[in-house]
Amino acid sequence: MTDEHQKVTAAAVLIGNELLSGRVVDQNMHYIATSLVDEGIDLVEVRVVPDEGEKIVQAIRELKDRVDYVFTTGGIGPTHDDITAEYIAKAFSQPLIQHPETARILREYFESKGIEANEERMRMANMPEGAEPVLHDHGPVPGFRMENVFVMAGVPRVMQAMLKGAIPLLRKGQKVHSASLRCNLQEGTIAKPLGVIQQKFPQVDIGSYPLSKQFNYDVSLVVRGRDSALVLQVFEEINSLVATLGGKLIDDE
Amino acid sequence: MTDEHQKVTAAAVLIGNELLSGRVVDQNMHYIATSLVDEGIDLVEVRVVPDEGEKIVQAIRELKDRVDYVFTTGGIGPTHDDITAEYIAKAFSQPLIQHPETARILREYFESKGIEANEERMRMANMPEGAEPVLHDHGPVPGFRMENVFVMAGVPRVMQAMLKGAIPLLRKGQKVHSASLRCNLQEGTIAKPLGVIQQKFPQVDIGSYPLSKQFNYDVSLVVRGRDSALVLQVFEEINSLVATLGGKLIDDE
Repeated sequence: MTDEHQKVTAAAVLIGNELLSGRVVDQNMHYIATSLVDEGIDLVEVRVVPDEGEKIVQAIRELKDRVDYVFTTGGIGPTHDDITAEYIAKAFSQPLIQHPETARILREYFESKGIEANEERMRMANMPEGAEPVLHDHGPVPGFRMENVFVMAGVPRVMQAMLKGAIPLLRKGQKVHSASLRCNLQEGTIAKPLGVIQQKFPQVDIGSYPLSKQFNYDVSLVVRGRDSALVLQVFEEINSLVATLGGKLIDDE
Repeated sequence: MTDEHQKVTAAAVLIGNELLSGRVVDQNMHYIATSLVDEGIDLVEVRVVPDEGEKIVQAIRELKDRVDYVFTTGGIGPTHDDITAEYIAKAFSQPLIQHPETARILREYFESKGIEANEERMRMANMPEGAEPVLHDHGPVPGFRMENVFVMAGVPRVMQAMLKGAIPLLRKGQKVHSASLRCNLQEGTIAKPLGVIQQKFPQVDIGSYPLSKQFNYDVSLVVRGRDSALVLQVFEEINSLVATLGGKLIDDE
């Protein structure tokens, strides 16, 4: 079922001191995760790194060959701490250049708004040589794509627009189907027979997530897989197991 | 100011398919970040990895020698997808054993509650040889410490209790001070002089975070550093810069 030829994988690199200091609560990981699931793309790793060039280069180099697509967020504005484009270029051993068409669009935009097209603002037209802008409907500053790496803003609304702009450029995978239930059994009660079901159906992933206070948990049981009929079949087995153990279903949120 | 001898660094590894599929919104990264900041410990990297043994081993091995402390969340319950302890053991090339004192405490606890101390529940007493339990006030299942790696639950309330239990065991760093303002200038307007201030004071980190819609942003300017007098001095320079440029301060949330 998990036909390897149809698997498309991705990683995300969230760039920003503000995430690691706790000043800002990340909102991008979850958006990226759910957007990629909708395209049948498996997000297999996320890294959060500071605004430090070598950390960015290291993360990109380690991830870009392991997955089909890497998405970065953060560090593409006009200020001194916006260093992502420069270090994406380094990660690919390419020079950072001003993308001519993007520069033209930005200059026209700034002029039309009476905003000075100063050197700092024009940095937002910088990309590694060989990169292409990723256009979107949230203003004229594009994200960009360098080979399989998509570079996006950190501000959630702008990131979301850029990801929407990127999605038509991605190879899609086979969609993952899921089914879940919530019941009032303890994890320790269902663990053994649930493990047996997982062993019997290695083509699906069964997850068990306790939901409230320790030892008095409700538990959420989730089946995920690319074969919808099999997901349903395994879900029915879990449903029967819960009934056999005297568990009651609870309305999920 | 950033005396290297007083710097204490940490990384976090968030383990769980549910984070990467978007089924669950992570709440742990931000809590860990702010808790460590309070102890003067710098969180320098976070990774989110799936419930896959080799991914856990790789993340732990890559991070444990780079930072003073690694904190993991997730995968320490009784079900088949709870594999963290086993792979922490592998990362340290140690056998996984049942920790005798923890097993005794769990067995007593289960008996007192009329809960069967079955094999799956007793898995929660498993740790790598050489690990020590990290006790806390949220039930009898401990986190554990293996050398510089602290292994915690994924459920936020339990994780928080375990981190509180771990904090007395950590070497503390010199605290970071911060000062911030929010004003109605565009990033592109302040970028150049702000960069000059950053260059003049490399011992502090100046962050610039746009807050709302593109090109009509408020911007939040943040100074962080370990020398509180210097943080204040740089903050005053930024304050003056904002006034010089005609910017108005805006009440922060």
